[in-house]
Amino acid sequence: MADRFQITYQVQADSIERAKEIAESIRVEQTVEMPIETLPAQGVSSLGEIEEITPSDRPDLWILTISYPQSVTGDDLTQSLNTLFGNISLYPGIRILDADDSFFSRRFSGPSFGLSGLRTLLNRDKDLPLSCTALKPVGLTPDELADLALQFTRGGINIIKDDHGIANQRSAPFKERVAACSKAVREGEQYTGNKTLYFPNITTSPSEVKNRYFEAVELGADGVLVCPQLTGLEIISELAELKQVPVMAHPAFSGGYIIHETHGFLPEFYYGKLWRALGADAVIYPNAGGRFTLSLETCLAMNKQMVGDFCGFRSSAPTPAGGIHVDSIPGLLKRYGRDICYLIGGSLYQDSDGVEKATKKFTKLLEG
Amino acid sequence: MADRFQITYQVQADSIERAKEIAESIRVEQTVEMPIETLPAQGVSSLGEIEEITPSDRPDLWILTISYPQSVTGDDLTQSLNTLFGNISLYPGIRILDADDSFFSRRFSGPSFGLSGLRTLLNRDKDLPLSCTALKPVGLTPDELADLALQFTRGGINIIKDDHGIANQRSAPFKERVAACSKAVREGEQYTGNKTLYFPNITTSPSEVKNRYFEAVELGADGVLVCPQLTGLEIISELAELKQVPVMAHPAFSGGYIIHETHGFLPEFYYGKLWRALGADAVIYPNAGGRFTLSLETCLAMNKQMVGDFCGFRSSAPTPAGGIHVDSIPGLLKRYGRDICYLIGGSLYQDSDGVEKATKKFTKLLEG
Repeated sequence: MADRFQITYQVQADSIERAKEIAESIRVEQTVEMPIETLPAQGVSSLGEIEEITPSDRPDLWILTISYPQSVTGDDLTQSLNTLFGNISLYPGIRILDADDSFFSRRFSGPSFGLSGLRTLLNRDKDLPLSCTALKPVGLTPDELADLALQFTRGGINIIKDDHGIANQRSAPFKERVAACSKAVREGEQYTGNKTLYFPNITTSPSEVKNRYFEAVELGADGVLVCPQLTGLEIISELAELKQVPVMAHPAFSGGYIIHETHGFLPEFYYGKLWRALGADAVIYPNAGGRFTLSLETCLAMNKQMVGDFCGFRSSAPTPAGGIHVDSIPGLLKRYGRDICYLIGGSLYQDSDGVEKATKKFTKLLEG
Repeated sequence: MADRFQITYQVQADSIERAKEIAESIRVEQTVEMPIETLPAQGVSSLGEIEEITPSDRPDLWILTISYPQSVTGDDLTQSLNTLFGNISLYPGIRILDADDSFFSRRFSGPSFGLSGLRTLLNRDKDLPLSCTALKPVGLTPDELADLALQFTRGGINIIKDDHGIANQRSAPFKERVAACSKAVREGEQYTGNKTLYFPNITTSPSEVKNRYFEAVELGADGVLVCPQLTGLEIISELAELKQVPVMAHPAFSGGYIIHETHGFLPEFYYGKLWRALGADAVIYPNAGGRFTLSLETCLAMNKQMVGDFCGFRSSAPTPAGGIHVDSIPGLLKRYGRDICYLIGGSLYQDSDGVEKATKKFTKLLEG
């Protein structure tokens, strides 16, 4: 096991000298956080070391690699995230591009189910993409949501998740909703003879999320949905370790980390590597061409990171979402291939033939 | 109690028509997240409503106010954060400027101790600012950190916090460190006859933070330090509700939310109102003129939000940090006044007279 790990940064600087100054700041800020000249020997040995500074294809951006002793994280995942982007999140012009395998392999475990595990739970051929939809809108009662769940299941959907804005509102309290929707999905399976998985949203106060997970499982859910940037990123790992049901991660509240070209994280690193390493069995991301702004190139790069070789971790199911229309599925299959989970919400609700028929059309397209 | 709350946004748009389109997107995205024409009546009643769109002093920025029914949050704090900036965090050019009192007063409780509670614990006059420092660097043993804690206490410091990068590393495991430093502070108090508070860093996996809080209290700590953007923001509230010791919040991993002029949150709203409403007794922020980039104007605005009238909440102690030199204290006192907590780390370690004397100089300046 390497005794140091490396992080690669993109920094904004008008000269290589300025890039060096920033590298000096980062290696101190992310470790000892005090002037080097005042450091005792133990502090010196905790410092990051600048390994490389190279130009990028933009004259104002430089690529830095800094290595850190493994000891600075204490093998605590949250402290590892802090070492990655804690205080330097407050500096302008720094973006995390990558971390090497020795950052991940020592601490992170990856998904407990992953894409292959989802296919196993669904008895689905390993060359078929997955279908997913969302129960909505907020305001419906448990019975109304359950009725929708029944229609989606009869339509042959693979995964039904709660809308991420459905929490524990009075209109549909958590326990009643999960019980009703789980039951409806089981009923729909009798009709299709196929498996459908129901993933309720368990996002709530950080110390209560695990309790919601256990409640969901107890009430018959087949997986869970969580918004990790609202609950603390390590929640993904805490849930994955429970190994009872798959964990689908939703990007709410995470945009500030990936939306800026010169700050935060490269999206394929953040969603593709970091969330996978933490253990997300499926990662929802805002699809290119929908309501959000990631490029097709970025989406392809994220898909690749989620399913490619990576520290022996299981693949995460890349789950593009946000304004995907059923009619766009044939084109998406060409772009994204089959190791993927298409999440369609609005377009199924809009179909004049009703939810069940629209879902049948969607799921049939995936098998074509 | 108002049945709706209002959120005020700054949006980037080249015309008022485009600003209106964005407002339409926000009111849907943050509630029902599906096409309006497909909504059942219960969905329609959950929609946000556009209250106002006005120009700003920049031609490309517009100010929107949208109101939401209280029912969409289910009075769940994390779902309230989701309603504030969940999916729209993934849109470029949207910044949260404010939320009205009816957003906060129904759900949030504010600090359990606050600035006045800290002064009470310290037996400190209510017209005196507070002094704070950090134990560092990572790599030191519990005994070495305790020796520093003793010196700071003998120097008369009010609050000693762990560096936020000191977690549970082998060099100083959590329990041994907290026990040793708490004991050293009690010993130092015998020398000064004054109270000093020790706040260990309890940041770790989201579902374990509360356990660390209880361990810290058990081991003799006087408060806790937490990085809420690493653990899930609602952790502040979960800890504040325990009411045993004060909670100091650290901005690590939060930069992406406040560093961009056209995205995220206005810093005085995010640190000043949101973290205060959640219950942070002290809020550390990157001071103007230090290593970070917030302006003096922003710092003054944050201070004002943390101590001004706000839903009857206790004040949070504004805690500027990051490269503050002892010699700058007289100037800072003029700028920031006395309802404040100055956090100085590096400058005390750099003083050639040693930590204890440097601390005496610092604390004396605050009483002058």
